[in-house]
Amino acid sequence: MADSGDSGNVGPDGKPISKKALKKQQKEAEKAAKKAQRKAEIEAEQQANQQEDFSKELYGDMKMIQSSEKPDRELVRIGDITSDKVDQLLWCRGRLHTSRATGRQCFVVLRQQQFTIQGLLAASEKISKQMVKFCANITKESIVDIQGYVRKVEAKVESCTQQDVELHIVQAFVVSKSSPQLPLQIEDASRPEGDANADDGRARVNQDTRLDNRILDLRTTTKQAIFRLQAGVCKQFRNALTERGFVEIHTPKIISAASEGGANVFTVSYFKSNAFLAQSPQLYKQMAIAADFEKVFTVGAVFRAEDSNTHRHLTEFVGLDVEMAFKYHYHEVLNVIGELFVSIFKGLRDECQTEIATVNRQYPAEPFKFLEPSLILEYKEGVRMLADAGVEMDEEEDLSTPNEKLLGRLVREKYDTDFYILDKFPLAVRPFYTMPDPNNSKWSNSYDMFMRGEEILSGAQRIHDPEFLSERAKHHGINLEQIKAYIDSFRYGCPPHAGGGIGLERVTMLYLGLHNIRSSSLFPRDPKRVTP
Amino acid sequence: MADSGDSGNVGPDGKPISKKALKKQQKEAEKAAKKAQRKAEIEAEQQANQQEDFSKELYGDMKMIQSSEKPDRELVRIGDITSDKVDQLLWCRGRLHTSRATGRQCFVVLRQQQFTIQGLLAASEKISKQMVKFCANITKESIVDIQGYVRKVEAKVESCTQQDVELHIVQAFVVSKSSPQLPLQIEDASRPEGDANADDGRARVNQDTRLDNRILDLRTTTKQAIFRLQAGVCKQFRNALTERGFVEIHTPKIISAASEGGANVFTVSYFKSNAFLAQSPQLYKQMAIAADFEKVFTVGAVFRAEDSNTHRHLTEFVGLDVEMAFKYHYHEVLNVIGELFVSIFKGLRDECQTEIATVNRQYPAEPFKFLEPSLILEYKEGVRMLADAGVEMDEEEDLSTPNEKLLGRLVREKYDTDFYILDKFPLAVRPFYTMPDPNNSKWSNSYDMFMRGEEILSGAQRIHDPEFLSERAKHHGINLEQIKAYIDSFRYGCPPHAGGGIGLERVTMLYLGLHNIRSSSLFPRDPKRVTP
Repeated sequence: MADSGDSGNVGPDGKPISKKALKKQQKEAEKAAKKAQRKAEIEAEQQANQQEDFSKELYGDMKMIQSSEKPDRELVRIGDITSDKVDQLLWCRGRLHTSRATGRQCFVVLRQQQFTIQGLLAASEKISKQMVKFCANITKESIVDIQGYVRKVEAKVESCTQQDVELHIVQAFVVSKSSPQLPLQIEDASRPEGDANADDGRARVNQDTRLDNRILDLRTTTKQAIFRLQAGVCKQFRNALTERGFVEIHTPKIISAASEGGANVFTVSYFKSNAFLAQSPQLYKQMAIAADFEKVFTVGAVFRAEDSNTHRHLTEFVGLDVEMAFKYHYHEVLNVIGELFVSIFKGLRDECQTEIATVNRQYPAEPFKFLEPSLILEYKEGVRMLADAGVEMDEEEDLSTPNEKLLGRLVREKYDTDFYILDKFPLAVRPFYTMPDPNNSKWSNSYDMFMRGEEILSGAQRIHDPEFLSERAKHHGINLEQIKAYIDSFRYGCPPHAGGGIGLERVTMLYLGLHNIRSSSLFPRDPKRVTP
Repeated sequence: MADSGDSGNVGPDGKPISKKALKKQQKEAEKAAKKAQRKAEIEAEQQANQQEDFSKELYGDMKMIQSSEKPDRELVRIGDITSDKVDQLLWCRGRLHTSRATGRQCFVVLRQQQFTIQGLLAASEKISKQMVKFCANITKESIVDIQGYVRKVEAKVESCTQQDVELHIVQAFVVSKSSPQLPLQIEDASRPEGDANADDGRARVNQDTRLDNRILDLRTTTKQAIFRLQAGVCKQFRNALTERGFVEIHTPKIISAASEGGANVFTVSYFKSNAFLAQSPQLYKQMAIAADFEKVFTVGAVFRAEDSNTHRHLTEFVGLDVEMAFKYHYHEVLNVIGELFVSIFKGLRDECQTEIATVNRQYPAEPFKFLEPSLILEYKEGVRMLADAGVEMDEEEDLSTPNEKLLGRLVREKYDTDFYILDKFPLAVRPFYTMPDPNNSKWSNSYDMFMRGEEILSGAQRIHDPEFLSERAKHHGINLEQIKAYIDSFRYGCPPHAGGGIGLERVTMLYLGLHNIRSSSLFPRDPKRVTP
């Protein structure tokens, strides 16, 4: 009996079939064969997985950490894994920053805050192919516990902060898994700011995407460094003042009357009535002075219901406020604030080098320059410098933002400093409670301070005499009834005093030469944003 | 010619006058004579004033200090005027605390913050009577610049802090005058708290009067000490955490969604929409952990729209918040917070002795006791101690305020500590994001901490797994849509973490053994008070 193999081009029904149909049939057969083969392979692989995965105790997803045990395992910080640990076997915990699998090997970069290290996993008699595959498939941003040998590398690992060593991975467990889809890539969010027109073909992350996904954006080494430096600003501020005998106070944010005339103030429903959010702690700082605290500072939220959508305005920011009784002249206070800034700048320079260098890699800026003691210029001298540079403005006119910036550049050219104090502002451009200059009431005992040409502090000697204060308020057309409580604060004896308020986010932004205040506010608030 | 003297009782018109009319005339004459005499005396006195006031350069009202000069005069602090300065001639600035004039002498007490000194002014060949009179008439609470010789006293001046010396006044100028009418007397506001029924006949100041006139109330040595100690709490808190590698962050107070379900939250008008005031920084602390800050703390205003009018509730208070990623067990965090409190208590004990002693004089309290390391009890152990003391309560029931206080007393009796940690609260009484105990889901990985039997911190391991978090939220009947942003924060990998929030005013109140939280809030806010 002839089998179909010998039967020529005949179909199963015994009828001859066409060449075309034959081809089709052949293709289908090949397909089926391939399918069967693939199935067999998968089965074999699965079998192999089950039978041959000699590494299966060495990797996997860790059970959710619910505090069920207290293992005695040290986790070495990635920043501490340096060449003095070569050949040690150690555990560390980090994020899977990137991974790249090449056949039987997988390279990963682990990241912990500002630090990164390269890890290598290669199939061997101890490491199964399955383990390599598992590691290659860990989603980026997942948190992993890695055990490995620290090994010296021949060529520096340019892409990591730990350049002299890498980790030869021995165990790998996923502590917390990230979604595979990230709304932004940490690498994209970390790229150096270049010329806006430069087209290097690499993705960058726009500001709204950053802010919408702030927890990812904040993981970049740059943001980690910015907010560590910001914490440093606060620390230096408080230490410098505490050393000088200042007392820290906390002032209420909910207040009964709009502090500065009712404009730009947020209203709060307060039980069956309304209240407001304080635009500054000034009234309360002054009351603390009237209450004999002599020298006070406060760090806290300040609210401005201003519909300003600029690079340097926020609706909520952190105010670093100072108020101080003086003996005879407000320059006693001005000098203390000048010294305060020198302390802050020195502290940052000495304690935050790593942070400054990290931020500079993404946002290049010249090192911040300051003088000791701080440079103090009179307002009219500033106007004169602007006039010499061709700016026409009246002596009693306020500084516009462009003039402010220009003056900053002029001062830097002439005095080689990014910080300076402008004293004796025109009385006409300052609030009613500002003490007029005793010699010429065209001027006032008030001052602003600038960093890289932008205002970061505004302050003055305040009027401490209730009668004179009333007179000045009337002159400004203010209804005395509305500020009665304020004026009454000075009726039981009050020492002469002066002070000022500093915007923390502005100091951070300008010290580092950043371009937008949203970079230096952890969760910024502006007229269009109250999330996240 | 006979003169009228001899003419008998005859009027100017020559007619005789009656006895009654005569008497009247005599009286009028006497009156006129007296008046003339008085006028002459006043004129003589005025003349004497002008001619004889050889001290007139030595006293008076100072011109309002407007920073017109920078005299090179040192003002010695009253607290520094001790027996090592005997016979020195010096200037100081203080408030006129009290004055008592006795003829040609005037005794004053000058006060500067926590310190007081006696001053004496006696008419002499150098000090005119007019000068004594001027000083005797200076209104209490006015600020004065006094020059005087430091003199040793024979008997200790019991009423002043500077007991071994007094000032023999040479010059006296009023820097800032107080109204003669004070709404409260500093002495009355400073009297020791006695038994409520004790009737010593002396005025005391009730709480509303104190709070309505807070700038006067805050001048008492007690309040000066309370808020200096409070600044110490913050300093110790931050230093202890900074040393342990924590980063200070600042979290927004204006938020888009009510953080804990919408109850007890204040609404803010935010441009054309509404927003809310954060009831705690917890969500943002946790986001900072998800964003790799690892260990964070924040000090800032926290808002609760709770209509609770108790001794320990405020609608706005200062939260000292901590959040920390841990390796394997939340006790890593619990122990850090326990150590943190030990650092705070030690710091206060060592650096604020003066303040503690000052407060104790008005509010007597036993010294605050603590153990090192801190005592940690399990919740069920606490329930057992209460049961042994006759309190019937279910193991899974929350602690009522009276039971909380009773347990504090029992713990103090048994362990001799005013601070302890209660660990492993029933899961049922904690918020949905609390991690259940891995061994028995009746309990949870959460804790409260207590000072003198009152809760000052509440905290827990938080669920860091988004799926489990959703499951627990559903179990609590929470609409997942409303907390989507919160749950999504954990989708890109988040380390296990725990933390807690401390109420600053409560810590201050309970450390010092005060009875009302309004004593430890500079300008307290409660449902009935938003002023001053």
